[in-house]
Amino acid sequence: MKNSVDSYLQFANSVLDETRRIGIDYFHQSIAVTQKSDASPVTIADLEIEALIRDRIMQRYPRHGILGEEHGAVSLDAEFCWVLDPIDGTKSFISGMPLWGTLVALLQNSQPVFGIIDIPALKERFLSVAGTGTTRNGESISTSNRSELGDCNLFATSPDMFTAAEYEVFNSLSQQARFRRFGGDCYSYAMLAAGKIDAVIEAGLKPYDYLPLAPIVTGAGGVMTDWFGQPLTPKSDGRVIAAATPELHRSLLQETSKLIA
Amino acid sequence: MKNSVDSYLQFANSVLDETRRIGIDYFHQSIAVTQKSDASPVTIADLEIEALIRDRIMQRYPRHGILGEEHGAVSLDAEFCWVLDPIDGTKSFISGMPLWGTLVALLQNSQPVFGIIDIPALKERFLSVAGTGTTRNGESISTSNRSELGDCNLFATSPDMFTAAEYEVFNSLSQQARFRRFGGDCYSYAMLAAGKIDAVIEAGLKPYDYLPLAPIVTGAGGVMTDWFGQPLTPKSDGRVIAAATPELHRSLLQETSKLIA
Repeated sequence: MKNSVDSYLQFANSVLDETRRIGIDYFHQSIAVTQKSDASPVTIADLEIEALIRDRIMQRYPRHGILGEEHGAVSLDAEFCWVLDPIDGTKSFISGMPLWGTLVALLQNSQPVFGIIDIPALKERFLSVAGTGTTRNGESISTSNRSELGDCNLFATSPDMFTAAEYEVFNSLSQQARFRRFGGDCYSYAMLAAGKIDAVIEAGLKPYDYLPLAPIVTGAGGVMTDWFGQPLTPKSDGRVIAAATPELHRSLLQETSKLIA
Repeated sequence: MKNSVDSYLQFANSVLDETRRIGIDYFHQSIAVTQKSDASPVTIADLEIEALIRDRIMQRYPRHGILGEEHGAVSLDAEFCWVLDPIDGTKSFISGMPLWGTLVALLQNSQPVFGIIDIPALKERFLSVAGTGTTRNGESISTSNRSELGDCNLFATSPDMFTAAEYEVFNSLSQQARFRRFGGDCYSYAMLAAGKIDAVIEAGLKPYDYLPLAPIVTGAGGVMTDWFGQPLTPKSDGRVIAAATPELHRSLLQETSKLIA
Protein backbone atom coordinates (compact mmCIF):
# COMPACT_ATOMS: atom_id res chain seq x y z
CA MET A 1 0.00 0.00 0.00
CA LYS A 2 2.83 2.42 0.89
CA ASN A 3 4.11 2.38 -2.68
CA SER A 4 0.72 3.00 -4.21
CA VAL A 5 0.01 5.90 -1.78
CA ASP A 6 3.30 7.46 -2.83
CA SER A 7 2.34 7.11 -6.45
CA TYR A 8 -1.18 8.57 -5.94
CA LEU A 9 0.39 11.45 -4.07
CA GLN A 10 2.97 12.10 -6.75
CA PHE A 11 0.17 12.08 -9.32
CA ALA A 12 -1.92 14.56 -7.26
CA ASN A 13 1.03 16.90 -6.73
CA SER A 14 1.83 16.91 -10.40
CA VAL A 15 -1.78 17.66 -11.41
CA LEU A 16 -1.92 20.46 -8.81
CA ASP A 17 1.23 21.99 -10.32
CA GLU A 18 -0.73 22.22 -13.57
CA THR A 19 -3.94 23.62 -12.05
CA ARG A 20 -1.97 26.17 -10.03
CA ARG A 21 -0.83 27.83 -13.25
CA ILE A 22 -4.38 27.92 -14.67
CA GLY A 23 -5.76 29.40 -11.46
CA ILE A 24 -3.11 32.11 -11.21
CA ASP A 25 -3.54 33.12 -14.85
CA TYR A 26 -7.28 33.66 -14.44
CA PHE A 27 -6.84 35.27 -10.99
CA HIS A 28 -4.89 38.13 -12.56
CA GLN A 29 -7.42 38.65 -15.35
CA SER A 30 -10.89 40.08 -15.31
CA ILE A 31 -13.20 37.12 -16.00
CA ALA A 32 -16.94 36.57 -16.31
CA VAL A 33 -18.86 35.21 -13.33
CA THR A 34 -21.98 33.08 -13.71
CA GLN A 35 -24.52 32.40 -10.99
CA LYS A 36 -25.32 28.75 -10.27
CA SER A 37 -28.79 27.47 -9.36
CA ASP A 38 -27.94 27.77 -5.65
CA ALA A 39 -26.97 31.44 -6.27
CA SER A 40 -23.26 30.73 -5.67
CA PRO A 41 -20.85 32.09 -8.29
CA VAL A 42 -18.78 30.04 -10.73
CA THR A 43 -16.12 31.10 -13.22
CA ILE A 44 -14.35 29.55 -16.17
CA ALA A 45 -11.40 28.97 -13.81
CA ASP A 46 -13.49 26.67 -11.56
CA LEU A 47 -14.75 24.71 -14.57
CA GLU A 48 -11.41 24.44 -16.35
CA ILE A 49 -9.48 23.36 -13.27
CA GLU A 50 -11.96 20.65 -12.37
CA ALA A 51 -12.13 19.42 -15.98
CA LEU A 52 -8.36 19.11 -16.08
CA ILE A 53 -8.13 17.15 -12.82
CA ARG A 54 -10.95 14.80 -13.90
CA ASP A 55 -9.33 14.26 -17.26
CA ARG A 56 -5.99 13.35 -15.66
CA ILE A 57 -7.69 10.95 -13.20
CA MET A 58 -9.75 9.24 -15.90
CA GLN A 59 -6.65 8.72 -18.03
CA ARG A 60 -4.51 7.40 -15.22
CA TYR A 61 -7.04 5.68 -12.93
CA PRO A 62 -10.07 4.89 -15.09
CA ARG A 63 -11.71 2.71 -12.39
CA HIS A 64 -11.54 5.33 -9.63
CA GLY A 65 -14.61 7.30 -8.60
CA ILE A 66 -14.74 11.12 -8.72
CA LEU A 67 -16.82 13.57 -6.72
CA GLY A 68 -16.34 17.16 -7.86
CA GLU A 69 -18.06 20.47 -7.17
CA GLU A 70 -18.73 21.57 -10.73
CA HIS A 71 -19.03 18.43 -12.83
CA GLY A 72 -20.82 15.99 -10.47
CA ALA A 73 -20.11 12.41 -9.43
CA VAL A 74 -19.00 9.21 -11.20
CA SER A 75 -18.45 5.67 -9.79
CA LEU A 76 -18.86 6.67 -6.15
CA ASP A 77 -19.00 2.96 -5.25
CA ALA A 78 -15.42 2.39 -6.48
CA GLU A 79 -12.80 1.37 -3.88
CA PHE A 80 -10.86 4.58 -4.52
CA CYS A 81 -12.64 7.90 -4.92
CA TRP A 82 -11.22 11.37 -5.60
CA VAL A 83 -12.95 14.36 -4.03
CA LEU A 84 -12.31 17.74 -5.71
CA ASP A 85 -13.12 21.37 -5.13
CA PRO A 86 -11.41 23.24 -7.98
CA ILE A 87 -11.73 26.67 -6.30
CA ASP A 88 -12.78 26.75 -2.69
CA GLY A 89 -13.48 30.45 -2.13
CA THR A 90 -14.78 31.54 -5.53
CA LYS A 91 -15.96 34.83 -4.00
CA SER A 92 -12.42 35.48 -2.73
CA PHE A 93 -11.05 34.55 -6.15
CA ILE A 94 -13.35 37.03 -7.91
CA SER A 95 -12.52 39.74 -5.36
CA GLY A 96 -8.74 39.52 -5.72
CA MET A 97 -8.30 38.00 -2.24
CA PRO A 98 -5.50 35.38 -2.38
CA LEU A 99 -7.02 32.90 0.10
CA TRP A 100 -8.83 30.61 -2.39
CA GLY A 101 -7.52 27.10 -2.88
CA THR A 102 -7.86 23.85 -4.78
CA LEU A 103 -8.87 20.95 -2.53
CA VAL A 104 -8.18 17.30 -3.31
CA ALA A 105 -8.77 14.19 -1.21
CA LEU A 106 -8.34 10.54 -2.05
CA LEU A 107 -10.69 8.16 -0.20
CA GLN A 108 -10.40 4.40 0.02
CA ASN A 109 -13.70 2.78 1.01
CA SER A 110 -14.85 6.21 2.22
CA GLN A 111 -11.82 6.61 4.51
CA PRO A 112 -9.30 9.39 3.73
CA VAL A 113 -5.97 8.27 2.26
CA PHE A 114 -4.74 11.87 2.02
CA GLY A 115 -5.95 15.46 1.80
CA ILE A 116 -4.37 18.46 0.05
CA ILE A 117 -5.04 22.21 0.19
CA ASP A 118 -3.21 24.05 -2.59
CA ILE A 119 -3.15 27.87 -2.33
CA PRO A 120 -1.89 29.05 -5.74
CA ALA A 121 -1.72 32.80 -5.05
CA LEU A 122 0.44 32.21 -1.96
CA LYS A 123 2.43 29.33 -3.49
CA GLU A 124 1.60 27.17 -0.46
CA ARG A 125 0.59 23.52 -0.43
CA PHE A 126 -0.71 21.79 2.71
CA LEU A 127 -0.70 18.02 2.64
CA SER A 128 -1.46 15.14 4.97
CA VAL A 129 -1.39 11.40 4.43
CA ALA A 130 -3.76 9.77 6.94
CA GLY A 131 -1.89 8.48 9.98
CA THR A 132 1.12 10.77 9.43
CA GLY A 133 1.76 14.48 10.01
CA THR A 134 0.76 17.57 8.04
CA THR A 135 3.22 19.60 5.98
CA ARG A 136 3.26 23.13 4.50
CA ASN A 137 5.47 23.17 1.41
CA GLY A 138 7.17 20.05 2.79
CA GLU A 139 7.78 21.32 6.33
CA SER A 140 6.01 19.81 9.33
CA ILE A 141 3.38 22.00 11.00
CA SER A 142 1.25 21.51 14.09
CA THR A 143 -1.77 23.07 15.77
CA SER A 144 -1.55 25.39 18.78
CA ASN A 145 -1.80 23.87 22.24
CA ARG A 146 -4.62 26.17 23.36
CA SER A 147 -7.35 24.35 25.22
CA GLU A 148 -9.30 27.21 26.90
CA LEU A 149 -11.91 28.88 24.70
CA GLY A 150 -11.17 32.24 26.38
CA ASP A 151 -7.61 32.14 24.95
CA CYS A 152 -8.70 31.18 21.45
CA ASN A 153 -9.51 32.86 18.17
CA LEU A 154 -12.49 31.53 16.28
CA PHE A 155 -13.10 31.66 12.51
CA ALA A 156 -15.95 31.19 10.05
CA THR A 157 -15.95 32.18 6.39
CA SER A 158 -19.16 34.22 6.68
CA PRO A 159 -22.13 34.79 9.00
CA ASP A 160 -24.22 34.12 5.89
CA MET A 161 -23.30 30.40 5.88
CA PHE A 162 -25.36 29.79 9.04
CA THR A 163 -29.09 29.39 9.65
CA ALA A 164 -30.44 31.66 12.39
CA ALA A 165 -30.24 28.85 14.96
CA GLU A 166 -26.69 27.91 13.91
CA TYR A 167 -25.60 31.55 14.07
CA GLU A 168 -26.89 31.78 17.63
CA VAL A 169 -24.58 28.89 18.56
CA PHE A 170 -21.66 30.53 16.75
CA ASN A 171 -22.36 33.87 18.48
CA SER A 172 -22.50 32.28 21.87
CA LEU A 173 -19.10 30.62 21.30
CA SER A 174 -17.66 33.88 19.87
CA GLN A 175 -18.58 35.73 23.04
CA GLN A 176 -16.50 33.29 25.07
CA ALA A 177 -13.52 33.37 22.66
CA ARG A 178 -10.61 35.83 22.66
CA PHE A 179 -11.81 37.13 19.32
CA ARG A 180 -13.60 35.97 16.20
CA ARG A 181 -13.05 36.73 12.54
CA PHE A 182 -14.86 36.11 9.27
CA GLY A 183 -13.32 35.35 5.88
CA GLY A 184 -10.67 32.77 5.14
CA ASP A 185 -12.29 29.88 3.23
CA CYS A 186 -10.05 26.80 3.23
CA TYR A 187 -7.07 28.90 4.35
CA SER A 188 -8.58 29.11 7.86
CA TYR A 189 -8.18 25.32 8.20
CA ALA A 190 -4.61 25.56 6.88
CA MET A 191 -3.84 28.23 9.50
CA LEU A 192 -5.45 26.07 12.18
CA ALA A 193 -3.07 23.28 11.13
CA ALA A 194 -0.19 25.79 11.27
CA GLY A 195 -1.00 26.85 14.87
CA LYS A 196 -2.21 30.39 14.04
CA ILE A 197 -5.99 29.84 14.33
CA ASP A 198 -7.46 27.84 17.21
CA ALA A 199 -10.92 26.90 15.96
CA VAL A 200 -13.05 27.02 12.83
CA ILE A 201 -16.80 26.45 13.09
CA GLU A 202 -18.82 26.36 9.90
CA ALA A 203 -22.05 25.09 8.39
CA GLY A 204 -23.53 24.50 4.97
CA LEU A 205 -20.36 22.84 3.64
CA LYS A 206 -20.41 20.16 0.97
CA PRO A 207 -18.40 16.89 1.04
CA TYR A 208 -15.88 18.30 -1.48
CA ASP A 209 -15.33 21.22 0.93
CA TYR A 210 -14.75 19.34 4.19
CA LEU A 211 -13.39 15.90 3.20
CA PRO A 212 -10.01 17.20 1.92
CA LEU A 213 -9.65 19.46 5.00
CA ALA A 214 -10.10 16.86 7.73
CA PRO A 215 -6.78 14.98 7.23
CA ILE A 216 -4.89 18.33 7.21
CA VAL A 217 -6.37 19.31 10.60
CA THR A 218 -6.05 15.85 12.15
CA GLY A 219 -2.50 15.24 10.89
CA ALA A 220 -1.37 18.49 12.55
CA GLY A 221 -2.73 17.40 15.94
CA GLY A 222 -6.22 18.92 15.76
CA VAL A 223 -9.68 17.41 15.85
CA MET A 224 -12.34 17.84 13.15
CA THR A 225 -15.86 16.42 13.36
CA ASP A 226 -19.45 17.43 12.75
CA TRP A 227 -21.33 19.53 15.35
CA PHE A 228 -22.23 16.38 17.28
CA GLY A 229 -18.71 14.97 17.52
CA GLN A 230 -19.18 12.40 14.74
CA PRO A 231 -16.42 11.76 12.19
CA LEU A 232 -16.92 13.48 8.83
CA THR A 233 -18.09 11.24 5.99
CA PRO A 234 -19.52 11.94 2.53
CA LYS A 235 -22.96 11.78 4.22
CA SER A 236 -22.30 14.33 7.02
CA ASP A 237 -24.69 17.28 7.23
CA GLY A 238 -22.11 19.97 6.33
CA ARG A 239 -21.72 21.43 9.84
CA VAL A 240 -18.10 21.15 10.98
CA ILE A 241 -15.96 21.97 14.00
CA ALA A 242 -12.17 22.03 13.69
CA ALA A 243 -10.21 22.61 16.89
CA ALA A 244 -6.52 22.84 17.76
CA THR A 245 -6.77 20.45 20.75
CA PRO A 246 -9.11 17.70 21.98
CA GLU A 247 -9.93 19.79 25.09
CA LEU A 248 -10.96 22.79 23.00
CA HIS A 249 -12.97 20.51 20.71
CA ARG A 250 -14.88 19.20 23.74
CA SER A 251 -15.72 22.75 24.92
CA LEU A 252 -17.01 23.71 21.48
CA LEU A 253 -19.10 20.53 21.22
CA GLN A 254 -20.85 21.34 24.50
CA GLU A 255 -22.40 24.31 22.72
CA THR A 256 -22.84 23.01 19.17
CA SER A 257 -24.41 19.72 20.24
CA LYS A 258 -27.21 21.65 21.97
CA LEU A 259 -28.57 22.62 18.58
CA ILE A 260 -31.10 19.79 18.48
CA ALA A 261 -30.95 18.83 22.18
CA MET B 1 6.69 71.30 -4.48
CA LYS B 2 7.15 68.48 -7.05
CA ASN B 3 10.71 67.92 -5.91
CA SER B 4 9.83 67.81 -2.25
CA VAL B 5 6.94 65.35 -2.87
CA ASP B 6 9.38 63.08 -4.68
CA SER B 7 11.75 63.26 -1.79
CA TYR B 8 9.02 62.59 0.84
CA LEU B 9 7.88 59.63 -1.24
CA GLN B 10 11.37 58.23 -1.61
CA PHE B 11 11.77 58.55 2.15
CA ALA B 12 8.45 56.75 2.83
CA ASN B 13 9.27 53.93 0.40
CA SER B 14 12.64 53.40 1.97
CA VAL B 15 11.21 53.29 5.52
CA LEU B 16 8.52 50.83 4.35
CA ASP B 17 11.22 48.58 2.91
CA GLU B 18 12.62 48.42 6.45
CA THR B 19 9.29 47.84 8.21
CA ARG B 20 8.32 45.15 5.71
CA ARG B 21 11.20 43.00 6.89
CA ILE B 22 10.26 43.49 10.57
CA GLY B 23 6.62 42.62 9.89
CA ILE B 24 7.42 39.49 7.91
CA ASP B 25 9.86 38.23 10.54
CA TYR B 26 7.26 38.48 13.30
CA PHE B 27 4.46 37.16 11.04
CA HIS B 28 6.26 33.84 10.74
CA GLN B 29 6.92 33.57 14.47
CA SER B 30 4.59 32.85 17.34
CA ILE B 31 4.41 36.13 19.28
CA ALA B 32 2.62 37.39 22.39
CA VAL B 33 -0.57 39.39 21.97
CA THR B 34 -1.65 42.06 24.46
CA GLN B 35 -5.13 43.49 24.78
CA LYS B 36 -5.44 47.29 24.63
CA SER B 37 -7.89 49.33 26.72
CA ASP B 38 -10.40 49.23 23.83
CA ALA B 39 -10.09 45.39 23.78
CA SER B 40 -8.29 45.41 20.42
CA PRO B 41 -5.11 43.34 20.23
CA VAL B 42 -1.57 44.68 19.84
CA THR B 43 1.73 42.86 19.32
CA ILE B 44 5.40 43.72 19.54
CA ALA B 45 5.34 43.94 15.73
CA ASP B 46 2.79 46.82 15.80
CA LEU B 47 4.83 48.68 18.41
CA GLU B 48 8.23 48.12 16.82
CA ILE B 49 7.12 49.09 13.30
CA GLU B 50 5.51 52.32 14.46
CA ALA B 51 8.51 53.19 16.65
CA LEU B 52 10.84 52.73 13.68
CA ILE B 53 8.77 54.92 11.34
CA ARG B 54 8.46 57.67 13.99
CA ASP B 55 12.16 57.53 14.68
CA ARG B 56 13.01 57.93 10.99
CA ILE B 57 10.55 60.84 10.61
CA MET B 58 11.84 62.65 13.69
CA GLN B 59 15.42 62.34 12.48
CA ARG B 60 14.69 63.47 8.95
CA TYR B 61 11.75 65.89 9.40
CA PRO B 62 11.88 67.04 13.03
CA ARG B 63 9.23 69.75 12.48
CA HIS B 64 6.63 67.45 10.95
CA GLY B 65 3.64 66.24 12.96
CA ILE B 66 2.91 62.53 13.53
CA LEU B 67 -0.37 60.75 14.22
CA GLY B 68 0.11 57.02 14.86
CA GLU B 69 -2.09 54.22 16.15
CA GLU B 70 0.12 52.93 18.91
CA HIS B 71 2.24 55.85 20.12
CA GLY B 72 -0.18 58.81 19.89
CA ALA B 73 0.12 62.26 18.32
CA VAL B 74 2.78 65.00 18.20
CA SER B 75 2.68 68.48 16.56
CA LEU B 76 -0.63 67.94 14.79
CA ASP B 77 -0.69 71.69 13.99
CA ALA B 78 2.46 71.41 11.83
CA GLU B 79 2.11 72.13 8.09
CA PHE B 80 3.11 68.53 7.26
CA CYS B 81 1.74 65.62 9.24
CA TRP B 82 2.41 61.89 8.87
CA VAL B 83 -0.42 59.47 9.59
CA LEU B 84 0.61 55.88 10.44
CA ASP B 85 -1.04 52.56 11.09
CA PRO B 86 1.84 50.10 11.64
CA ILE B 87 -0.35 47.00 11.24
CA ASP B 88 -3.85 47.47 9.90
CA GLY B 89 -5.42 44.06 10.48
CA THR B 90 -3.69 42.92 13.68
CA LYS B 91 -6.23 40.10 14.01
CA SER B 92 -5.33 38.87 10.52
CA PHE B 93 -1.63 39.19 11.39
CA ILE B 94 -2.07 37.05 14.52
CA SER B 95 -4.14 34.48 12.60
CA GLY B 96 -1.63 33.92 9.79
CA MET B 97 -3.83 35.66 7.20
CA PRO B 98 -1.59 37.65 4.80
CA LEU B 99 -3.95 40.62 4.27
CA TRP B 100 -2.57 42.94 6.99
CA GLY B 101 -0.73 46.07 5.89
CA THR B 102 1.22 49.11 6.96
CA LEU B 103 -0.57 52.37 6.13
CA VAL B 104 1.17 55.72 5.69
CA ALA B 105 -0.22 59.06 4.57
CA LEU B 106 1.42 62.47 4.38
CA LEU B 107 -0.93 65.43 4.89
CA GLN B 108 -0.19 69.09 4.14
CA ASN B 109 -2.56 71.40 6.00
CA SER B 110 -4.87 68.41 6.53
CA GLN B 111 -5.01 67.64 2.77
CA PRO B 112 -3.50 64.36 1.55
CA VAL B 113 -0.18 64.63 -0.32
CA PHE B 114 0.01 60.86 -0.81
CA GLY B 115 -1.23 57.58 0.66
CA ILE B 116 0.47 54.16 0.76
CA ILE B 117 -0.77 50.64 1.58
CA ASP B 118 2.12 48.22 1.98
CA ILE B 119 1.20 44.50 2.17
CA PRO B 120 4.39 42.76 3.33
CA ALA B 121 3.20 39.15 3.17
CA LEU B 122 2.12 39.61 -0.46
CA LYS B 123 5.04 41.86 -1.41
CA GLU B 124 2.60 44.43 -2.80
CA ARG B 125 2.71 48.19 -2.38
CA PHE B 126 -0.19 50.45 -3.41
CA LEU B 127 0.62 54.12 -3.76
CA SER B 128 -1.10 57.29 -4.85
CA VAL B 129 0.12 60.89 -4.95
CA ALA B 130 -2.91 63.20 -4.75
CA GLY B 131 -3.99 64.37 -8.20
CA THR B 132 -2.27 61.49 -10.01
CA GLY B 133 -3.10 57.80 -10.50
CA THR B 134 -2.74 54.79 -8.21
CA THR B 135 -0.07 52.13 -8.71
CA ARG B 136 0.41 48.54 -7.50
CA ASN B 137 4.13 47.75 -7.39
CA GLY B 138 4.64 50.58 -9.87
CA GLU B 139 1.93 49.57 -12.37
CA SER B 140 -1.18 51.69 -12.91
CA ILE B 141 -4.44 50.25 -11.61
CA SER B 142 -8.02 51.46 -11.82
CA THR B 143 -11.40 50.70 -10.29
CA SER B 144 -14.13 48.70 -12.04
CA ASN B 145 -16.72 50.57 -14.08
CA ARG B 146 -19.69 49.00 -12.30
CA SER B 147 -22.38 51.49 -11.42
CA GLU B 148 -25.39 49.26 -10.59
CA LEU B 149 -25.48 47.95 -7.03
CA GLY B 150 -27.05 44.69 -8.29
CA ASP B 151 -23.84 43.93 -10.26
CA CYS B 152 -21.51 44.74 -7.39
CA ASN B 153 -19.71 42.93 -4.61
CA LEU B 154 -19.66 44.65 -1.24
CA PHE B 155 -17.06 44.27 1.51
CA ALA B 156 -16.65 45.05 5.20
CA THR B 157 -13.95 43.73 7.52
CA SER B 158 -16.44 42.40 10.09
CA PRO B 159 -20.09 42.66 11.10
CA ASP B 160 -18.71 43.43 14.57
CA MET B 161 -17.43 46.85 13.46
CA PHE B 162 -21.00 48.19 13.14
CA THR B 163 -23.55 49.39 15.69
CA ALA B 164 -26.95 47.71 15.33
CA ALA B 165 -28.34 50.68 13.34
CA GLU B 166 -25.26 50.77 11.07
CA TYR B 167 -25.48 47.02 10.48
CA GLU B 168 -29.09 47.41 9.38
CA VAL B 169 -27.92 49.85 6.70
CA PHE B 170 -25.14 47.49 5.63
CA ASN B 171 -27.57 44.55 5.49
CA SER B 172 -30.02 46.46 3.40
CA LEU B 173 -27.28 47.34 0.88
CA SER B 174 -25.98 43.73 0.93
CA GLN B 175 -29.38 42.43 -0.07
CA GLN B 176 -29.31 44.59 -3.18
CA ALA B 177 -25.70 43.68 -4.08
CA ARG B 178 -24.50 40.70 -6.14
CA PHE B 179 -22.79 39.34 -3.05
CA ARG B 180 -21.12 40.53 0.13
CA ARG B 181 -18.07 39.31 1.96
CA PHE B 182 -16.39 39.97 5.29
CA GLY B 183 -12.66 40.06 6.04
CA GLY B 184 -10.03 41.96 4.14
CA ASP B 185 -8.89 44.91 6.27
CA CYS B 186 -6.97 47.47 4.19
CA TYR B 187 -6.57 44.95 1.36
CA SER B 188 -10.26 45.40 0.47
CA TYR B 189 -9.55 49.03 -0.44
CA ALA B 190 -6.50 47.97 -2.44
CA MET B 191 -8.65 45.46 -4.37
CA LEU B 192 -11.27 48.17 -4.92
CA ALA B 193 -8.53 50.31 -6.45
CA ALA B 194 -7.48 47.29 -8.57
CA GLY B 195 -10.99 46.78 -9.98
CA LYS B 196 -11.74 43.49 -8.16
CA ILE B 197 -14.04 44.80 -5.40
CA ASP B 198 -16.78 47.32 -6.16
CA ALA B 199 -17.60 48.81 -2.78
CA VAL B 200 -16.36 48.81 0.82
CA ILE B 201 -18.62 50.13 3.58
CA GLU B 202 -17.24 50.30 7.08
CA ALA B 203 -17.64 52.05 10.42
CA GLY B 204 -15.66 52.57 13.60
CA LEU B 205 -12.45 53.43 11.71
CA LYS B 206 -9.82 55.79 13.09
CA PRO B 207 -8.08 58.59 11.12
CA TYR B 208 -4.92 56.46 10.78
CA ASP B 209 -7.10 53.74 9.18
CA TYR B 210 -8.96 55.78 6.58
CA LEU B 211 -6.71 58.77 5.76
CA PRO B 212 -4.01 56.70 3.97
CA LEU B 213 -6.70 54.72 2.06
CA ALA B 214 -8.61 57.63 0.52
CA PRO B 215 -5.92 58.74 -2.00
CA ILE B 216 -5.48 55.11 -3.16
CA VAL B 217 -9.21 54.78 -3.92
CA THR B 218 -9.57 58.25 -5.45
CA GLY B 219 -6.42 57.99 -7.56
CA ALA B 220 -7.72 54.76 -9.13
CA GLY B 221 -10.98 56.43 -10.21
CA GLY B 222 -13.14 55.63 -7.18
CA VAL B 223 -14.90 57.81 -4.63
CA MET B 224 -14.39 57.65 -0.86
CA THR B 225 -16.30 59.75 1.66
CA ASP B 226 -18.09 59.42 4.98
CA TRP B 227 -21.64 58.01 5.11
CA PHE B 228 -23.08 61.45 4.33
CA GLY B 229 -20.94 62.14 1.27
CA GLN B 230 -18.52 64.46 3.05
CA PRO B 231 -14.77 64.30 2.33
CA LEU B 232 -12.74 62.40 4.91
CA THR B 233 -10.71 64.52 7.33
CA PRO B 234 -8.93 63.79 10.60
CA LYS B 235 -12.21 64.80 12.30
CA SER B 236 -14.58 62.47 10.37
CA ASP B 237 -16.70 60.07 12.43
CA GLY B 238 -15.04 56.85 11.20
CA ARG B 239 -17.87 55.69 8.93
CA VAL B 240 -16.64 55.35 5.35
CA ILE B 241 -17.96 54.43 1.91
CA ALA B 242 -15.56 53.59 -0.90
CA ALA B 243 -17.08 52.94 -4.33
CA ALA B 244 -15.68 52.07 -7.76
CA THR B 245 -17.71 54.75 -9.60
CA PRO B 246 -19.50 58.02 -8.75
CA GLU B 247 -22.84 56.45 -9.76
CA LEU B 248 -22.38 53.52 -7.38
CA HIS B 249 -21.28 55.93 -4.66
CA ARG B 250 -24.52 57.89 -5.09
CA SER B 251 -26.64 54.70 -4.77
CA LEU B 252 -24.85 53.69 -1.59
CA LEU B 253 -25.20 57.18 -0.11
CA GLN B 254 -28.97 57.06 -0.58
CA GLU B 255 -29.06 54.29 2.00
CA THR B 256 -26.24 55.30 4.36
CA SER B 257 -27.33 58.92 4.63
CA LYS B 258 -30.70 57.78 5.99
CA LEU B 259 -28.98 56.78 9.21
CA ILE B 260 -29.81 60.04 10.99
CA ALA B 261 -32.36 61.34 8.49
